[in-house]
Amino acid sequence: MYKKKDKKPDDAGSRLTSLAELGEFGLIDRLTKNVSHFHPETLKGIGDDAAVIDAGEKVILLSTDLLVEGIHFDLTYMPFRHLGYKAAVVNISDIAAMNGIPTQMTVSLAVSSKFSAEALDELYAGILMACNQYKVDLVGGDTSSNVKGLMISVSIIGVANKEDVVYRNGARSGDLLCVTGDLGSAYVGLLILEREKSVFQVDPNMQPELSGFDYQIGRQLRPEARTDIRNLLLGTGIRPTSMIDISDGLASEILHICKQSGVGCKLFEAKIPIDEHTRELAKEYKIIPSVAALSGGEDYELLFTVKQDDYEKIKDVAGITIIGHMTAPSEGKYMITPDGKSIPITAQGWDGMRGK
Amino acid sequence: MYKKKDKKPDDAGSRLTSLAELGEFGLIDRLTKNVSHFHPETLKGIGDDAAVIDAGEKVILLSTDLLVEGIHFDLTYMPFRHLGYKAAVVNISDIAAMNGIPTQMTVSLAVSSKFSAEALDELYAGILMACNQYKVDLVGGDTSSNVKGLMISVSIIGVANKEDVVYRNGARSGDLLCVTGDLGSAYVGLLILEREKSVFQVDPNMQPELSGFDYQIGRQLRPEARTDIRNLLLGTGIRPTSMIDISDGLASEILHICKQSGVGCKLFEAKIPIDEHTRELAKEYKIIPSVAALSGGEDYELLFTVKQDDYEKIKDVAGITIIGHMTAPSEGKYMITPDGKSIPITAQGWDGMRGK
Repeated sequence: MYKKKDKKPDDAGSRLTSLAELGEFGLIDRLTKNVSHFHPETLKGIGDDAAVIDAGEKVILLSTDLLVEGIHFDLTYMPFRHLGYKAAVVNISDIAAMNGIPTQMTVSLAVSSKFSAEALDELYAGILMACNQYKVDLVGGDTSSNVKGLMISVSIIGVANKEDVVYRNGARSGDLLCVTGDLGSAYVGLLILEREKSVFQVDPNMQPELSGFDYQIGRQLRPEARTDIRNLLLGTGIRPTSMIDISDGLASEILHICKQSGVGCKLFEAKIPIDEHTRELAKEYKIIPSVAALSGGEDYELLFTVKQDDYEKIKDVAGITIIGHMTAPSEGKYMITPDGKSIPITAQGWDGMRGK
Repeated sequence: MYKKKDKKPDDAGSRLTSLAELGEFGLIDRLTKNVSHFHPETLKGIGDDAAVIDAGEKVILLSTDLLVEGIHFDLTYMPFRHLGYKAAVVNISDIAAMNGIPTQMTVSLAVSSKFSAEALDELYAGILMACNQYKVDLVGGDTSSNVKGLMISVSIIGVANKEDVVYRNGARSGDLLCVTGDLGSAYVGLLILEREKSVFQVDPNMQPELSGFDYQIGRQLRPEARTDIRNLLLGTGIRPTSMIDISDGLASEILHICKQSGVGCKLFEAKIPIDEHTRELAKEYKIIPSVAALSGGEDYELLFTVKQDDYEKIKDVAGITIIGHMTAPSEGKYMITPDGKSIPITAQGWDGMRGK
């Protein structure tokens, strides 16, 4: 999520490596290459939606996510209550992506003196609304002043039976690639909000025109986590072979599964579930609807794979769409367009188009 | 840790409550007053050094701490490697304060583009050095760009037998008040560093004069967590009745134990362990040495209470000092000076003198 900025030479000269050069995932790889574990209870460390820690009967899942003002949210159009809700939900989503049950959460704030206690009351009302909705206990945190702006750091704990945890690395060639809900609306919601913000900046007397875009704006400002999918799949008797939540966009998440599972994939563009109105709006913004789904991110739906044998069980489950299948790694990672063209799936090319 | 700043009227008028008015603990109380728990496994939520979660045989401890540039650290004199080490240690200290064993950690960074990858390499080298020292697995995190500066959010998990966990609320009238190590040196170290910084700001050609202050500067820049105390006390057959780590200063931590245990206390000023050189340096800075201990903070020693019956067991343990005892709540919270005066212990009065 590193923004590309003009590179400035660093104090100690140009031999230093800028963060923009590395990108978020490159930086993480670089910083964590020397990590080693001391505890056999650490079943999974860095590299999935959550760490997995053996706790005897059950495993404990641990994940953490930052939200930084000016990077992840814009208080011009993000109400504090929604922000609190979203900060909680993006973390809850990480536990859902491990097929776990979210249970406890800590919330840390760094906040400049420009914020009032009443604003933070609203933020916490949103956090507690999400805690109530998803039955998560707020158990701690830290508060600090900040030189500028607001930063929210949430850590979350979840629980699961050891055999129920679904990792990113379990997909096999032939597995079906599935996604919950629909994609791209959160990004289109962001475009609408950004448009109204720029109108407002030109003329502060203009009222924002947000009516009629409830779905897209709701997806952006107040996403939900798919904790319901765990039970839905249990009911069908299906255990996903791999799973990840869609925070950075479908393309990026598919590549994570491919990389960690050591497989290739074939994604069918025509199968990507996109809300009809979102599709129309994307076109108004001169964006190919599938690009909004592939690269927009923040939909917080789940992407997962199931064994081909589970086709009959999953094909008619409402709210789940089969969008492709995994292949041998040598077959590459491709999206097939409706007219039969194969386009390599890449997450890098999209960085430029993203508003964050 | 909210700094007192000039109050500016908020956008929506003066009826809004500034954060400075509330202070950190007032703000936390206000924001978390509506928190309720859904999981019986949540044995302890907000209000101790760590949350305590039942995990069957063992309990899981969870804590989190933020370090914000310009608030908690100053990169003028804080090397990145020390900063990483300290960010890990302050969290490890929270688990030690629960009488637990730290096991896993996540590290999240928000970092502006002015930082190089090499600087973050150093930061992580420090984090991993602490992980190695204290046998903690780094299992995850998040990285984000930041509009300005550096922010580090660490969350830590620890483990303990249920019956071994020591809370803040277990002190009883008559219990002995004990502290590990010595206090005030981290604060005096900060004063030395701030002095050299101001000399440097006046004349950037001046070399900082830091030799001879190794202990004080080391305590400030590279503190250690007292994870050794758990085994030390086990060896003596003593189980503390309450415990907390000293991050904000002795006075503040004593008041936390008194409040949560519902007791008063008598602290003997002459008993507070202070390094001899630190004592001299404090006087040079025109600070009463005990004030550096009471209000300086960042020593990361442990403050704990033991039953009076344990006096014989604890009185000669090297590195542990009995500094007072707990009283009935009606007797108040007092420090007794060497000439027999009783001074109310207060954490608020010191805010003004603190450099952070």
